[in-house]
Amino acid sequence: MHLLNKLFLLIFLTFQCNEILNISAIISSNNNNNNLYNGPKDYLYTEKYINVPLDHFSFTNQTTFKLRYLINETYSSGRSYSPIFFYTGNEGDIELFAQNTGFMWEAAKQMQAAVIFAEHRYYGKSLPFGSMSFNSSTYSGYLSAEQALADYATLLYNITNGKYDSRPIIAFGGSYGGMLAAWFRMKYPHIIIGALAASAPILQFTGLTPCDIYSRIVTSVFKVADKPECVENIINSWDMFKNFSSNDKGRQILNNKYKFCKNVTKTDDITNEFFEYLNDMYSNLAMANYPYQNEFLAPLPAYPVRMFCGQLEKLYQGEELLNAMHNAISIYANYTGKLKCLDYSTAFEPNMGDLGWNFQSCTEMVMPMCNKNSMFPKSDWNFKGYSDKCFKQFGVRPNEHEILMRYGGKQIDSASNIIFSNGLLDPWSSGGVLKSNNDKINIIIIPEGAHHIDLRAANPDDPASVINARIQELSIIENWITEYYFSRTR
Amino acid sequence: MHLLNKLFLLIFLTFQCNEILNISAIISSNNNNNNLYNGPKDYLYTEKYINVPLDHFSFTNQTTFKLRYLINETYSSGRSYSPIFFYTGNEGDIELFAQNTGFMWEAAKQMQAAVIFAEHRYYGKSLPFGSMSFNSSTYSGYLSAEQALADYATLLYNITNGKYDSRPIIAFGGSYGGMLAAWFRMKYPHIIIGALAASAPILQFTGLTPCDIYSRIVTSVFKVADKPECVENIINSWDMFKNFSSNDKGRQILNNKYKFCKNVTKTDDITNEFFEYLNDMYSNLAMANYPYQNEFLAPLPAYPVRMFCGQLEKLYQGEELLNAMHNAISIYANYTGKLKCLDYSTAFEPNMGDLGWNFQSCTEMVMPMCNKNSMFPKSDWNFKGYSDKCFKQFGVRPNEHEILMRYGGKQIDSASNIIFSNGLLDPWSSGGVLKSNNDKINIIIIPEGAHHIDLRAANPDDPASVINARIQELSIIENWITEYYFSRTR
Repeated sequence: MHLLNKLFLLIFLTFQCNEILNISAIISSNNNNNNLYNGPKDYLYTEKYINVPLDHFSFTNQTTFKLRYLINETYSSGRSYSPIFFYTGNEGDIELFAQNTGFMWEAAKQMQAAVIFAEHRYYGKSLPFGSMSFNSSTYSGYLSAEQALADYATLLYNITNGKYDSRPIIAFGGSYGGMLAAWFRMKYPHIIIGALAASAPILQFTGLTPCDIYSRIVTSVFKVADKPECVENIINSWDMFKNFSSNDKGRQILNNKYKFCKNVTKTDDITNEFFEYLNDMYSNLAMANYPYQNEFLAPLPAYPVRMFCGQLEKLYQGEELLNAMHNAISIYANYTGKLKCLDYSTAFEPNMGDLGWNFQSCTEMVMPMCNKNSMFPKSDWNFKGYSDKCFKQFGVRPNEHEILMRYGGKQIDSASNIIFSNGLLDPWSSGGVLKSNNDKINIIIIPEGAHHIDLRAANPDDPASVINARIQELSIIENWITEYYFSRTR
Repeated sequence: MHLLNKLFLLIFLTFQCNEILNISAIISSNNNNNNLYNGPKDYLYTEKYINVPLDHFSFTNQTTFKLRYLINETYSSGRSYSPIFFYTGNEGDIELFAQNTGFMWEAAKQMQAAVIFAEHRYYGKSLPFGSMSFNSSTYSGYLSAEQALADYATLLYNITNGKYDSRPIIAFGGSYGGMLAAWFRMKYPHIIIGALAASAPILQFTGLTPCDIYSRIVTSVFKVADKPECVENIINSWDMFKNFSSNDKGRQILNNKYKFCKNVTKTDDITNEFFEYLNDMYSNLAMANYPYQNEFLAPLPAYPVRMFCGQLEKLYQGEELLNAMHNAISIYANYTGKLKCLDYSTAFEPNMGDLGWNFQSCTEMVMPMCNKNSMFPKSDWNFKGYSDKCFKQFGVRPNEHEILMRYGGKQIDSASNIIFSNGLLDPWSSGGVLKSNNDKINIIIIPEGAHHIDLRAANPDDPASVINARIQELSIIENWITEYYFSRTR
């Protein structure tokens, strides 16, 4: 199924890491009337399904379900010994990642590799219990990183007819997908010869990274983008919004200007939904602060943070600040100019991806977040409150040490053939692997890079550090593949 | 709880690998009246329990259960940085392994290490659902190697207060416990710095090892033990038994001589239970063919295979063979001289260990076995029949490729710091790792070694190759520990 064949594409992507950070966007693109630069859309693949065990680790039932994957063997010409570039799908519809991971396609063409994008269970079309998949933890309970990795191992077992080492397989992934790629290599080194883990915050867990780093990086991105007034205005805006929302006259001005889909009323607490929306917006702007138009997280201009700050060049106050912030927010919320009203509750509407990541955050993916010394209102990390909220929503309580126990946190001395790439403009670099004493781990820092920009297709506007990162990555991957073939000739 | 404190100890140990090989023995030792050499029994430990999640990989429920472990900190004097020697418990009561793994105690004394023996879930006293644990796969379904490894990771997380790398931890294990030790290092290298996997048949799986090797090694052990007449007599005995059991007069002679607890009758098929008993007996004799008396698998004399064959030095036929075989079998079945009747159904009576390993064999531990060119009656490996039997018994069907998918089979290029030791007298060396191109994997071959004899306490009768193996193992482990401490000072 090719995107061009579809009149309307609706992709839900959610990247929510906890109750504080809930980044979600709907990409609605009408391909017949598309003014945005989307990168090449000629990535062709066959959509396939494979039966995988619902539970790879226990035997209380032997249920299976259909996992989706996308496969292209054009560059490999179906050769049984050619490399496989394997994307370890993350929390969303796998087609979104297939269309936004141009580097993998370009590298596959160059290295005559087969391309496979595997969908993560409980996302996209890979719902073990269909529409009931999130009805209770009896259904959703089989959603975990280890189960997903075992799905990928099962899929590759089938693709290689049970002979994993008959082909050199490289895992690719960005963000949570990058975490999975790294963990896949750590746990299944007999299946993949290496992994490119782009913007993979495997250290964004309890005890490994201070909870305030993330928001401080977001703040830095806004600080370096333009004049200092930008961050100053943002800092002032929180109280400004509270003030306007606290009385009838203020609310009238606010509602008139912002054209909310649902007016803020006396009983609404603006610091809940609307502030969370703004939090997500700032994170998304930083993550997608690419040097060219794109619609990965939302339809956005090139360097959206600079564009945003361009509306906040002077130090405003009161209604002037309200207006300037409206203009700035429109860069994010209404870049297409088609917005009829601002629905700031959108990120929190239940949709598959949302529910999936919410559940994962409430079981093993506990990423502590807090705000201090940043442009956000001060807040602490409150595990108990977080846990209570999870119990209320899903009937489960998170295990904040699960990931450390499973994957070792900073202790990756025994791992090999993993590239950890991080952009310094990316807030998720907070939990990234930025250094290592292990010479079999490659660290690539991209000073001008936002969220896994290196995985995106080459673009004329790519900064030098992104181009260099890709050259390094290609070279390392080529070395792995050469070593693989060489070891087979001995 | 110390063995000496118990008047009667009843330990069930089962090492059953498929329907053909079912090795089981009951060790019933009355410590007040014990004429056998048991090795030092002064291994003291505290018995403790820890709550572990029933299911480490899914979140359909958040049930926990009590896992037992034995701990001794005498040699480490409770120092928080001392090494931990950690036994990855296998299919039996953990006290059996604590008392039969003297090498670990001796090494701990030498290296001032804490000693921990962790019980495998669903064995001994670590039954998640008590007496209901095997009532159906709803209960028994959480019995798997990966769940057990996650138990061990959880236990060590607690022991080290969440700082795994605060102490150098070495895993030890023999047989299935050795497989677990090796896999523990492969999957959790951030927790343990190395593993001694003694007689660990991690290659005894579909597609990795021909199914007839095991029985051929058993045959070899009997061949080299004494004169060729021994194996010749065994080969002839199968038809002899069938002949005697096929008519009234023959059965009368057979029953009189063998004093079965339940006479063989016209309707009994002697090739079922009795032949399976003999299969187990030959395997157990080979496994426990130690140079000194012991009661690990059953009360046995030194070099029991030689003793057995000592009764078969001439080529017998007919009733002479029947009588000679009876004398030989008595070496195994009645070494204590206290046997009242021969209960050849014992191995197949349901008991905890039995059920546990049977279930594991019916899910992931599928070890294909067949007999050709051996002293056993010819038989093929029949996966379908095996699977049907499993489905009938447990409602589950085995996945014969699970272990290969999970742990990689022969592809262990990325593993490090694992010692694979194998005795050439041990039938399980059939599935052992006997060679490796990986210089971080140590292979130790013990020509005069039976089943993980190197893990047993030093004994004056140990052959030179066993003594040498232990010296090598100690040296390698010392190197790992030195490297660990050195890396902490950098």
